[in-house]
Amino acid sequence: MSKIIPVSGFPEWKPGLQVAQERILDVIRTHFRLHGYSPIDTSLVERVESLSAKGGGENEKEIYGLRRLHGLPTDEGSLALRFDLTVPLARYVAQNERELAFPFRRYAIGRVYRGERPQAGRFREFYQCDIDVIGNGTLSLDYDAEAPAIMYEIFSKIGLGDVLIRVNNCKVLRGFLQGFGKDSSLHNSLFSLVDKRDKIGQEELSRIAVEELGLPSDAVESLASFLSTKVPLDAIKETISQLSDNPMYQEGVKELAHVVNKMLELGIPESAIVVDMSIARGLDYYTGTVYETALRNRPEVGSVCSGGRYENLVANFSSRPFPGVGMSIGLTRLVYRLAELKLLKEDEQSFSRVMIANMGSSSAKTASQLAQLLRGAGIACEEYMTEQKLDKQIIFALKKGCTYLLLIGEDELATGSVCVKNLKDRTQKVVPFNDVVQLLV
Amino acid sequence: MSKIIPVSGFPEWKPGLQVAQERILDVIRTHFRLHGYSPIDTSLVERVESLSAKGGGENEKEIYGLRRLHGLPTDEGSLALRFDLTVPLARYVAQNERELAFPFRRYAIGRVYRGERPQAGRFREFYQCDIDVIGNGTLSLDYDAEAPAIMYEIFSKIGLGDVLIRVNNCKVLRGFLQGFGKDSSLHNSLFSLVDKRDKIGQEELSRIAVEELGLPSDAVESLASFLSTKVPLDAIKETISQLSDNPMYQEGVKELAHVVNKMLELGIPESAIVVDMSIARGLDYYTGTVYETALRNRPEVGSVCSGGRYENLVANFSSRPFPGVGMSIGLTRLVYRLAELKLLKEDEQSFSRVMIANMGSSSAKTASQLAQLLRGAGIACEEYMTEQKLDKQIIFALKKGCTYLLLIGEDELATGSVCVKNLKDRTQKVVPFNDVVQLLV
Repeated sequence: MSKIIPVSGFPEWKPGLQVAQERILDVIRTHFRLHGYSPIDTSLVERVESLSAKGGGENEKEIYGLRRLHGLPTDEGSLALRFDLTVPLARYVAQNERELAFPFRRYAIGRVYRGERPQAGRFREFYQCDIDVIGNGTLSLDYDAEAPAIMYEIFSKIGLGDVLIRVNNCKVLRGFLQGFGKDSSLHNSLFSLVDKRDKIGQEELSRIAVEELGLPSDAVESLASFLSTKVPLDAIKETISQLSDNPMYQEGVKELAHVVNKMLELGIPESAIVVDMSIARGLDYYTGTVYETALRNRPEVGSVCSGGRYENLVANFSSRPFPGVGMSIGLTRLVYRLAELKLLKEDEQSFSRVMIANMGSSSAKTASQLAQLLRGAGIACEEYMTEQKLDKQIIFALKKGCTYLLLIGEDELATGSVCVKNLKDRTQKVVPFNDVVQLLV
Repeated sequence: MSKIIPVSGFPEWKPGLQVAQERILDVIRTHFRLHGYSPIDTSLVERVESLSAKGGGENEKEIYGLRRLHGLPTDEGSLALRFDLTVPLARYVAQNERELAFPFRRYAIGRVYRGERPQAGRFREFYQCDIDVIGNGTLSLDYDAEAPAIMYEIFSKIGLGDVLIRVNNCKVLRGFLQGFGKDSSLHNSLFSLVDKRDKIGQEELSRIAVEELGLPSDAVESLASFLSTKVPLDAIKETISQLSDNPMYQEGVKELAHVVNKMLELGIPESAIVVDMSIARGLDYYTGTVYETALRNRPEVGSVCSGGRYENLVANFSSRPFPGVGMSIGLTRLVYRLAELKLLKEDEQSFSRVMIANMGSSSAKTASQLAQLLRGAGIACEEYMTEQKLDKQIIFALKKGCTYLLLIGEDELATGSVCVKNLKDRTQKVVPFNDVVQLLV
């Protein structure tokens, strides 16, 4: 007999939390589909050289390769587990270019693997839920507004309150930083520093900029003031276009204003959008629009999804440009965090709120017919199939989170009726067999 | 730039086939839930010792372990990918015993990994869709009837025609074989041989039994006749109980008759059940009821799901018995085979049948409002967001498998209407904006 030691970083939920996660997944999947995104479910296994094609990067250091435990080795040595859903997408697009209709909208929901050091709250296996649109050659800026619109809908439906979408454009920040002289390594260092602003705070950011990067104090002040500029949605250009005459900056401002306008057109309310000059998100990846999000009334949950536009990703696999834009929900981290904060209902261990009691063999057939009737009407229900005292059956139903217990005893069998017990409010009524569906719908 | 070489055995579908697979998955998931099964989604990664706990077996030889490509190794060496969903279930049940309500109904849909030699049509990564019920200590025989009832419902809904469920009980065959003397290794060899009967045929089976296993020819004849006994559902005991007086045989016959009776009670039509004395399914795994299936009008598809009852599985992880019964759909193989036989519709690359054309910036806002209206009514639709000639937009819509193209040109904008083109039958009509939902529902 083996002793079971849980593996840190490879999370598994108890049934109640798993049901909560499935409900969130259902909403995500439904809305991805409502917008015409194609489901793509690439293998979890990629060739090592595909994963390494980008060259360097933190994620690559954390790759898990496959190996053979027994038997003759074949090609396992060249295979590894994916660390995100974007590299597989790039590879898939390059490989299936002719089959796809561009702009190619795709969603992917799946697990990814990162060899982090095992420690509490760090995941080595986790779900990502991604939407991306990939253009063939070019991709209209209007698409940059769609992912946040879909994410807004999703979080409205999940019932955690409004999501707040912070949006920026990499060119704006990069262009602004170019105003501090020609030292591009300084720009890069400052860009990475700004990316950490949410974590370290503006004060620490300014200290590092002065003490470690040697930025003159007037430049630091100008940067601090820039990063915290309040930008009204209806006057983006008017508010920030005069802050720098750098051409990249000007292009970024124009794009940003266009994308925000389109976000409003796609139905995101004004109150859910914040233009935030301090969103940087990864130096070598995103090239235009970038998004970061939080729950308005639950900022402690942290980022619920994020993303942006990239111009060069598929370029690792194809000689032609395939620009893209997308967002990703880190589902496992989100569910973990929501559970930690007790924001999820975890008392339902299945999708059924109805249990049909076992009242012995004389009513077994009728009980099964009732179950089939309910399921035919879309009502999930579970038949208790063990002969057992009723109080034990009630304990079972309560443990699973059922609300209704249906009984067909001798009286009900004789009169063609069903006793419907509400286990939550402890009431019960006897109704004709054919009226049960209507009562429970 | 990397050259992309597909990895044999790790299948990926084109969007049209992926949509077809997702539709099948939706049906499977819906019906698993309708019956009150808890969703459990264990990690793909298990400890090597958990996977090896059963001791030996073909699957174990094919285990893929993890290894570190870069960075400091931690515990990867003791981790490996699961080869089925049943071993993880056993481990999960032992680990979470107190949280679970028994009999514990669980469903799992996920990928498993087997290091087969790479060759066409052999999968090293594939989806399984499993339902199992696990009892704590004991499990009523009635549960043996539920999994096939659910599978019957699922295949009815998928629209591939009726599934034919062949059912047997291991004790029947094992008991019968004991009639050939006390040599238990002969019983085992014969049992394994019968398990191959579908593949090799009765003639070859008889030849091997005589020539290789040395079974007397009268015993071979008796076995052949036994294996092809026609057993009417309403007279199982009467037909076969006198064929052997072995106690295990008699117990098996009793169980088989009980389970078939319950299967009928749970709504499986008589025409979908065949009692088949030749179903063996794995010597050391199943201990009672066993099922094998096929599509009635498409036998060439092969087995679509299978399973049975096991008494000892969780025993590798717990000192107490947790008997179980379940069935599994080998989804990847099924979809591959259906596609090969051209039995799946693969021309829809997303879940949207409706595309809203891009008619320029003047109607962009109205077009977005229309999209939101449709989605609010549950109608998936895609907005074309690139300014492009209409014929190119139509080509895009057709490639994705859309039926409807909605246009809001100057006239429609002025009159508050929408032009609805049916791309399949090449008709079109102009309807008021608010009537579009009704037309497309």
